[in-house]
Amino acid sequence: MSGMPPNDDAVPVLDLSTDVVTLTEQLVDIESVSRNEQRIADAVEAALRQHPHLRVTRFGHTVVARTELGRDERVVIAGHLDTVPVNDNLPARRDGDLLHGLGTCDMKSGDAVILAIAASISEPRRDVTYILYEAEEIEAEHNGLRKLAESHPELLEADFAILMEPSNAVVEAGCQGTLRVDVTVAGVRAHSARSWMGANAIHAAGAVLDRLNAYEPRRPEIDGLTYHEGLNAVGIRGGVAGNVVPDRCVVEVNHRFAPDRTEEEAEEFVRDFFHGFDVTVTDSAPGALPGLDLPAARAFVAAVGGEVNPKFGWTDVARFSALGVPAVNFGPGDPSLAHRQDEHVPLVQIGHCEQALRAWLAGDD
Amino acid sequence: MSGMPPNDDAVPVLDLSTDVVTLTEQLVDIESVSRNEQRIADAVEAALRQHPHLRVTRFGHTVVARTELGRDERVVIAGHLDTVPVNDNLPARRDGDLLHGLGTCDMKSGDAVILAIAASISEPRRDVTYILYEAEEIEAEHNGLRKLAESHPELLEADFAILMEPSNAVVEAGCQGTLRVDVTVAGVRAHSARSWMGANAIHAAGAVLDRLNAYEPRRPEIDGLTYHEGLNAVGIRGGVAGNVVPDRCVVEVNHRFAPDRTEEEAEEFVRDFFHGFDVTVTDSAPGALPGLDLPAARAFVAAVGGEVNPKFGWTDVARFSALGVPAVNFGPGDPSLAHRQDEHVPLVQIGHCEQALRAWLAGDD
Repeated sequence: MSGMPPNDDAVPVLDLSTDVVTLTEQLVDIESVSRNEQRIADAVEAALRQHPHLRVTRFGHTVVARTELGRDERVVIAGHLDTVPVNDNLPARRDGDLLHGLGTCDMKSGDAVILAIAASISEPRRDVTYILYEAEEIEAEHNGLRKLAESHPELLEADFAILMEPSNAVVEAGCQGTLRVDVTVAGVRAHSARSWMGANAIHAAGAVLDRLNAYEPRRPEIDGLTYHEGLNAVGIRGGVAGNVVPDRCVVEVNHRFAPDRTEEEAEEFVRDFFHGFDVTVTDSAPGALPGLDLPAARAFVAAVGGEVNPKFGWTDVARFSALGVPAVNFGPGDPSLAHRQDEHVPLVQIGHCEQALRAWLAGDD
Repeated sequence: MSGMPPNDDAVPVLDLSTDVVTLTEQLVDIESVSRNEQRIADAVEAALRQHPHLRVTRFGHTVVARTELGRDERVVIAGHLDTVPVNDNLPARRDGDLLHGLGTCDMKSGDAVILAIAASISEPRRDVTYILYEAEEIEAEHNGLRKLAESHPELLEADFAILMEPSNAVVEAGCQGTLRVDVTVAGVRAHSARSWMGANAIHAAGAVLDRLNAYEPRRPEIDGLTYHEGLNAVGIRGGVAGNVVPDRCVVEVNHRFAPDRTEEEAEEFVRDFFHGFDVTVTDSAPGALPGLDLPAARAFVAAVGGEVNPKFGWTDVARFSALGVPAVNFGPGDPSLAHRQDEHVPLVQIGHCEQALRAWLAGDD
C-alpha cells in the first residue's frame, strides 16, 4: 500500500526542506503501524542527523533531537510516529484542500511540522527537545515516551511541553483522566426451566444500568476551561448456556474524570456510585491540569493566539504533567477523525501550526 | 476412566438377568458421551438379540426392540444412551444407598430398567416398543428419536409413551415449551471521552432488564397440574472497546411456556412483552400437554400410583405429543442432579421404577 516497497531495506529519504504538506505525504507513505516503526524512525533519525545544530540520540524507535544553546528556557515538542492498523487508506491522497490517508490526522502532519521546524530553526529563542516516539497507539507498556521517562527522565526536563496531537490547530490544555472498573453482579445458577430455584445475575445487573442512566456528569471549570466528565458502560457480559439462569454478570465501566480529581478520588467516586456491588479497578491513568497559569504556558498561548479548549480525551500530556512539566496539545487535524478509515487533515491547519511554532521559536521568519 | 479400556474393540457384554443396580453400573461404565455411542449401542443390541420374544432393529446407534403379540394396546418405553461430557466422574461408585457417576441419574438407571423389563417379560399384557437412542444431550439434529420419527414414524406409533428421564420415580406429565429470542438494543457509537456525542446501547438495555425484573409468571392449571412459566435473560453481550460508547447490546432471553400455549402464542407474548425493541427468534420447541385425560395415561398413573407432577423442563415427550401419542416422564433420579459433576441416583428409586413397570406390564410377577 505504501509508495515504497515495505521490504525495501534502504532507509527512505525524507526531505526536511520541502513544504510541510509534502513532508506529511512522505511520512504517511512510510507505513508505520505500531510495532513496525523501524523504517520511519531510521528515516527520521537520518534526516535530523544532517543538521549539526541538533544533538540526536535514539532509543529503540524513538528519536530525540536537542538544541543546546544554553537558553533560559527549554521546551519539548513531541509526536508519535506510529499509526493504528492500515484500513485500505494508504498511500496519502491529496484532494483539494485536504490530505487523506492513514496518519494524516493522527499524527504525521504534526510530525511533519516538528521535523520542518527542527531542521530550519538553528537558533531558536528557547532551547528545544524534539521527540518523535514509537508505540503510542497500543498498550502503554510499549509507549516510547513512557520508556524514555523511565530510562532518561533528564531528556524530558523542560519548562513546557507541546504534544502535536490533533486538536484542530488550537491549543487544547490538560486532559481528563480515565478509570476502568468491572462491576460484578452475582446470582445463583439454576436450570432456566426452573428459574425460581436460582437468582438471575443479568436481571440484577439492571440496577447497575439504572444507576448509570441516572448519572449526572460534573462539568468543573478549571483555569477558565470547562471539562466534562463521563461514566459509561463500555462492555457487558453474562451467560452460561441457553438453558441456564446465569450466576454472574460483569459490567465494564469507563469513567472519564476532570483533572481536578486524582485517580484515587476518581476511584472513590466510582466505588461510592456503585455502592453495594463488587467493583474491581482494571485500568487507571491520571488526568493533567491545564496549567495555563504557568508563565511558559501563558507565553505560548499568547504567541499562537486563538481560543483554548479543554482536552477531553487522555493523551501523553499526562506523562509530562506527572513529571511536573505543564503541557498542551496543539496540532493539525480534527481529533474526532483519528482512527477512522477516512481520516484526513486540512492543509491550512498544517501550515497554521507551522507558522505559529515558527513565530514562537524564531520570531518573525 | 471406564472399567473397560476405551479402545477395546470387543463389544462389552451386558447381563440383563442381573439386578437393575448392577446393570446400571455396567451401563455407566461404558462411556457414551454424545457422538460416542457405538460401543454402548453394540452392547445393548447384542444383549437384546438374545431374547427371541423381541424383534430388534438398529438405526445408527439407536436400538429398537418390539414385542409383536397382537395386543390391543401398544406402549413405547424409551431412554437415551448418551451422556454429557465426562467430568472426573467415572467409573460408577456405590456408596450406601446411592450410586454415583456420570449417567447414573441421566439416565442409565432408566435404561437399565428398560433393559431388565424388556428381557424378562416375554409376554407383556400390552405390546411394547423399547427404544434406546443416541444423542439426546446435544443439538436436536443428531437426536436419535427425532431421526426415527422422521425415517420410521410407524415405529413410534403407540397408545402411550413413557420416557424414563429422571423424575424422582414419580410420573411427570407433559412438558413446557421453550423459546429463545435475541432482544437487540441499538445506540450510537462515540469515543468514551466525549460520550455525549453518542448513545450508549448498554445503558439503553436497562429498560429490557427492567421489564424482565417486572415479569410475573403465569401458573396455569392443566389436567390438575400447575405449570410455572419463566422469562429469563440467559446471556447478555455488548461492547466495542474500552474507550468506545457501544452502539449495540444483545440480551438473549429464554421463555419457558406452559403447554396450553403454542409456539406461535409464546412468540406473540414475547414480542408484546418487549414491544419497542428488536426481537429475533433463535430457537423454539413446543410444549406437550399432559394428556392425563386419555385412557392409556390414566391406566398407567393408576397402576404406578403416587402423585403426578408437571414437567417444567423440555423433554422428548414433546416429540410423542407432536405425533399424537400421550407421553409422560417416569424414571429414577432427581432431575436437578442431571449434568452435575456429582450426579447420583438412590438405589431405591431404580427398584421402584422397575417394580411399577413390571406390575403394569406383567401383573403380579
